[in-house]
Amino acid sequence: MDLNLWAIVPAGGAGTRLWPLSRAGAPKFLHDLSGGGRSLLQATRDRLEPLVGDHLIVVTGQAHADAVRAQLPELPGDRILAEPSARDSMAAIGLAAARVEARDQDALVGSFAADHVIADAEEFRERVREAAGVAADGWLVTIGIEPDGPATGFGYIRVGERLDGFESAAAVEAFVEKPDAARAAEYVASGRYRWNAGMFVARASVLLDLLAAEHPELAAGLRRIAAEESLLPEIWPELAKIAIDHAVAEPAAAAGKVAVVPGDFGWADVGDFEALAALTPGADLKIFGPAERVVASDASGLVVPRGGRTVAVLGLSDVVVVDTEDALLVTTTDRAQDVKRIVDALRARGQTDLL
Amino acid sequence: MDLNLWAIVPAGGAGTRLWPLSRAGAPKFLHDLSGGGRSLLQATRDRLEPLVGDHLIVVTGQAHADAVRAQLPELPGDRILAEPSARDSMAAIGLAAARVEARDQDALVGSFAADHVIADAEEFRERVREAAGVAADGWLVTIGIEPDGPATGFGYIRVGERLDGFESAAAVEAFVEKPDAARAAEYVASGRYRWNAGMFVARASVLLDLLAAEHPELAAGLRRIAAEESLLPEIWPELAKIAIDHAVAEPAAAAGKVAVVPGDFGWADVGDFEALAALTPGADLKIFGPAERVVASDASGLVVPRGGRTVAVLGLSDVVVVDTEDALLVTTTDRAQDVKRIVDALRARGQTDLL
Repeated sequence: MDLNLWAIVPAGGAGTRLWPLSRAGAPKFLHDLSGGGRSLLQATRDRLEPLVGDHLIVVTGQAHADAVRAQLPELPGDRILAEPSARDSMAAIGLAAARVEARDQDALVGSFAADHVIADAEEFRERVREAAGVAADGWLVTIGIEPDGPATGFGYIRVGERLDGFESAAAVEAFVEKPDAARAAEYVASGRYRWNAGMFVARASVLLDLLAAEHPELAAGLRRIAAEESLLPEIWPELAKIAIDHAVAEPAAAAGKVAVVPGDFGWADVGDFEALAALTPGADLKIFGPAERVVASDASGLVVPRGGRTVAVLGLSDVVVVDTEDALLVTTTDRAQDVKRIVDALRARGQTDLL
Repeated sequence: MDLNLWAIVPAGGAGTRLWPLSRAGAPKFLHDLSGGGRSLLQATRDRLEPLVGDHLIVVTGQAHADAVRAQLPELPGDRILAEPSARDSMAAIGLAAARVEARDQDALVGSFAADHVIADAEEFRERVREAAGVAADGWLVTIGIEPDGPATGFGYIRVGERLDGFESAAAVEAFVEKPDAARAAEYVASGRYRWNAGMFVARASVLLDLLAAEHPELAAGLRRIAAEESLLPEIWPELAKIAIDHAVAEPAAAAGKVAVVPGDFGWADVGDFEALAALTPGADLKIFGPAERVVASDASGLVVPRGGRTVAVLGLSDVVVVDTEDALLVTTTDRAQDVKRIVDALRARGQTDLL
């Protein structure tokens, strides 16, 4: 609490690659994917609470505002921001930052996705504390995740010179887009790159000023809404749709204004079933749900038995079986990235009730 | 009808390797596996009707007698024989044969399983007509299926010299047990072997006399029941449990009393999901059930969508997905023979409601 930090938690994204577990009406962040008894959103709140208390703002779509409220009943009502329409991450995070700025010019904000998993919450908080210290010095600070392999599903951060006076912070040379496999392997081998997990910590005013330098209308619009809430329905639809990385992080890095604090606390974005399987190392066949529903022989991979029936798996390696009440998916961890093809096919057929 | 032939249709066997489609309470022969709108039992009756009219006796377990009656409402009531307990195929077929013998000393009987599929019914009937002609001459006649590959799941018939005076009949040298893969390949390469599909045609009196020579008590018991139906509950439990192959066919072949009529009419026993998939040549992914329930991408194998929900399959070759209301099986056609392992595991867990 001594940090004067507000957590901003964007809760969006349908998690299409986790279909049929994640649906448009019940997206990933509302699910207890890690099996710990709390949804990803609730776990995000639990993890941040020692740092920010109830200084936490969830930005979500109007369709999910009620579900968010139900999952976080202890949060004051004004901490849930319902976007009238999706305007990408800059508008979502920027609006919350503008509200914080309007309330306290000196306050820090940190953005943390609602649907990531972090194994070591204490180490995570230590890194956020360091990031907050660097941010108080005027930097836009990101937390760069130590890669545990040449992943192609994330953007990377190229780390530059260490900053004097901080435990581990360094300058960011550049943010780079999701690489292909060869380039990802080079990045990891070089030791100079970290994964971009979308965590940004800065003074609210620094973040908005950086935005104003690149996209003045967007920054002005967000600040006007923060000053006068009733303008939201009028201004919001006109705001530019842009991701925070493109709007602020990349140009600020090019201008030498971004720092990175390294993080190694068991982070996972659980973007697909392969990532979900990786949450449980060891077991050949990982079961996310009631284990007594599964009968397996010579099988490895992942079973999500949530359809209320018995699931039998025989003689398949790295299989993914996701059983829900109205839809069943059978694939392999290899093909986890392609699950959206199924979603696309269902949409093309008009079976939108299953999406 | 001019054949004076009675068809005996043993309807037993749970079809364990077709779980969860086939269950103890709803075994394979009650299902429309081939998708033609008639169960295997009904299709068996349809196929035999031009040969035997209503001279057809179904021998089944008491648990299934009502279901058999419901599927064959046109059959006179006394044509369904409910066994008080399972005594293997010799007692089942033998009791029906003894009944036929008691009614008509000269009548022929032919045994035809209730749960096989035959593509060319007219050709099948032609071969049965020839077999009946040979049987009228005093032989025990089997129909030997032309192998379409070195199957290891069937017994084989070693064919001897041709019989004079018949279109295609030959003597049987021996019945041999299910071979291993190497031996099956030898058998098929030699051109001297045919599959044993359990089809036997003989005079009822010849069949029972052959049985009497090997197992006099069993033959006598069956004939006593046929003479006095009320003795069934008393005698039946004491009858020897033995398969017709061991009880009669093998010793009779050794004695030179068995003939074989070759058959090549698209026979399949549909004993497992690999065999079910083979019923539909051509398509990469075969669907047995409502096709609109299946969404597939880069998938081959077999889907049985009978659980009322959408089944999505992505990136799997030769997969088997059988979806029912209370149980789901995911395996491969390679492992089709091992499905009973799952059934055994469920039994060991006490989940007998799923069997």
